[in-house]
Amino acid sequence: MTTETDRTAADSKVERASLVEATRPSSEVVHFPVHAPLTLSSGQTFGPFSIAYKTYGALNADKSNAILICHALTGDQYVASENPVTKKPGWWISLVGPGKSIDTDKYFVICSNILGGCLGSSGPASIDPETGKPYGLSFPVITIADMVEAQVRLIDHLGIKSLFSVVGGSMGGMQVLEWAARHPQRVFSAIPIATAAHHSAQNIAFHEVGRQAVMADPNWRGGRYLEEGTFPRNGLSVARMAAHITYLSEDALQGKFGRNLQERSAKTFSFDADFQIESYLRYQGSTFVDRFDANSYLYITRAMDYFDMEADNGGKLANAFHGTRTRFCVVSFTSDWLYPTRESRDIVRALNAVAANVSFVEIESDKGHDAFLLDEPELFQTVSGFLGAAAEARGLVARSGTRG
Amino acid sequence: MTTETDRTAADSKVERASLVEATRPSSEVVHFPVHAPLTLSSGQTFGPFSIAYKTYGALNADKSNAILICHALTGDQYVASENPVTKKPGWWISLVGPGKSIDTDKYFVICSNILGGCLGSSGPASIDPETGKPYGLSFPVITIADMVEAQVRLIDHLGIKSLFSVVGGSMGGMQVLEWAARHPQRVFSAIPIATAAHHSAQNIAFHEVGRQAVMADPNWRGGRYLEEGTFPRNGLSVARMAAHITYLSEDALQGKFGRNLQERSAKTFSFDADFQIESYLRYQGSTFVDRFDANSYLYITRAMDYFDMEADNGGKLANAFHGTRTRFCVVSFTSDWLYPTRESRDIVRALNAVAANVSFVEIESDKGHDAFLLDEPELFQTVSGFLGAAAEARGLVARSGTRG
Repeated sequence: MTTETDRTAADSKVERASLVEATRPSSEVVHFPVHAPLTLSSGQTFGPFSIAYKTYGALNADKSNAILICHALTGDQYVASENPVTKKPGWWISLVGPGKSIDTDKYFVICSNILGGCLGSSGPASIDPETGKPYGLSFPVITIADMVEAQVRLIDHLGIKSLFSVVGGSMGGMQVLEWAARHPQRVFSAIPIATAAHHSAQNIAFHEVGRQAVMADPNWRGGRYLEEGTFPRNGLSVARMAAHITYLSEDALQGKFGRNLQERSAKTFSFDADFQIESYLRYQGSTFVDRFDANSYLYITRAMDYFDMEADNGGKLANAFHGTRTRFCVVSFTSDWLYPTRESRDIVRALNAVAANVSFVEIESDKGHDAFLLDEPELFQTVSGFLGAAAEARGLVARSGTRG
Repeated sequence: MTTETDRTAADSKVERASLVEATRPSSEVVHFPVHAPLTLSSGQTFGPFSIAYKTYGALNADKSNAILICHALTGDQYVASENPVTKKPGWWISLVGPGKSIDTDKYFVICSNILGGCLGSSGPASIDPETGKPYGLSFPVITIADMVEAQVRLIDHLGIKSLFSVVGGSMGGMQVLEWAARHPQRVFSAIPIATAAHHSAQNIAFHEVGRQAVMADPNWRGGRYLEEGTFPRNGLSVARMAAHITYLSEDALQGKFGRNLQERSAKTFSFDADFQIESYLRYQGSTFVDRFDANSYLYITRAMDYFDMEADNGGKLANAFHGTRTRFCVVSFTSDWLYPTRESRDIVRALNAVAANVSFVEIESDKGHDAFLLDEPELFQTVSGFLGAAAEARGLVARSGTRG
């Protein structure tokens, strides 16, 4: 069992690492002043606000080689470089980097922490300039579209008129779809991976369990834990454990863990983590709380639950893409039960209905939803092949850019 | 939000209704004395112990018409009569009662609260006679086999040598399989429904999330909440919510709730239960904690996780049924992803390998795991048809019993 002392020590660690990054990020950050607020989907205006971001590679002379990568629920701007909190390598270095499928020798890669996030972009852990205290629950409830509009400001700030590509998996894929729908003239190509055009009842259900777990933790303090010097470690950990199950396929769980015992030869007839799967989940939960803000988790899951491009477009998903000239590559994985292939097919059908340029790849994988983050050669080939053809179509010449 | 006062009031309610039933059940109860303890799978002996049970219908003269019904995780002995805590009708009245598939005009139906349960059989909420206090975590960790051995004592007590049938769904089905494996000569027929011969990694994972949610609740008090006058409402509620998702199919969730809003015309841009599915899950969680003991939930999920008839039988499931003369009817549902059909097929294959008398029915249903509790005419027909043929094989004549 974790003792109270351990917990306090762990809480300080949270304060040390992740809270510092929430307010003073290691990455670049652009501040948008109060006179240029965002108008949110809720109708509320929000500003001033900040967007923290990283770039990789060099923007070419005509600014035509920029790729925006959109991160998933618990991702961040450190797509291809060390995360300053966890000290782990970038979360998509399998796909992004010199000579990789998203080749930073050819492309200028931008990745920003989403609005509502906790690694330097404005979110519930940021300081509200009006009160001098963390926003907590006074941060506005945002949507995927709001995240995209904040990214639009960043892209404007960087002086880029049209993105060569927008790429993302899971919630990142939702942002890709919103970008293509809201700003078709600014998106030359789009790669939504392992995603859907709306959040299903089951997805909402899992998110609601996670939120209730966080809010049930007395250390959540009605969202004011930062002010009160606590942290809802237990609740957020349970939320992460429940979510983590949905990221893996049953086959992956069975293959990886099965009913194997954890460093013991027999059942202990206790509530210890006898099984490897238990030990693994507990580890996932406990490491997550060291790097992520609990209120951010509430806001971001809410944004995903609210995501419904069909409803937002008069009940017809195709309406979102009417007249689009963006080139799409839709990718799904066979064992993904969080965003199953049929939901990617819905996107493809909508794009077909407006005669869009779309290719669709369903990748055979037993790794479940997480496959998009893992070593999946077919994903790498799909992305590099699609981007290569798109680069040719756009007349991009490799390595033609001015360096950094 | 629930206030502290609400919570205290609700806690007293728990004490009033479910705690009274845990210690002084409304149903019949048989006490087994300290000199006849159970030898548990762990090697520990346990006694004295009590088993609370209900019976329906009349035992015939040669005691050949008894059907034992085994309940699932959160079930109880009130299979066909009002639950004294919830005041709701019996949990399987669709299947059990006069003129129903399990016809109490023909059969003598027995249903006992499992060992480890909280409606009158010995469990962690029972009073430990040695200390005069609730067992809490000093209750021994038990297995499905231990539950069955406790039932065996009850059946002995009732003077029944051979059960005409043992029937159960989900964890009830696990007990059916254990009965047939451990006491083949006492089980004329067996109907394991929506179950498996072992708990998968994914199943263990969901249970572990639930247990961690309970144990993370400060009101759990290391399991001593009954002594300390608290109750881990929030943690147990989150556990129930997570589990409940696994009981329904994605199609059922989508069909029943989809993205429908709960009594509002638009999203509120808040953390309220905007969606019907959220409201439904919160309701499931909050009603559950009024009727169920948190420690029982820990012990019973643990017993299910430990269930592995293959490992218990030298790595070969068929070994469990060698030489069996029991007639089996194995039932699964197409949309059950907790115990999918392939796990029922594993049981059938093992039974085929020992040339057992087995019929197998996979029922088309979109209701998920919960289908076994719901209005599924094909289930009703399957059970009544199978029991009718078995009754003929056993030479049972309808209504021949002496009325009790």
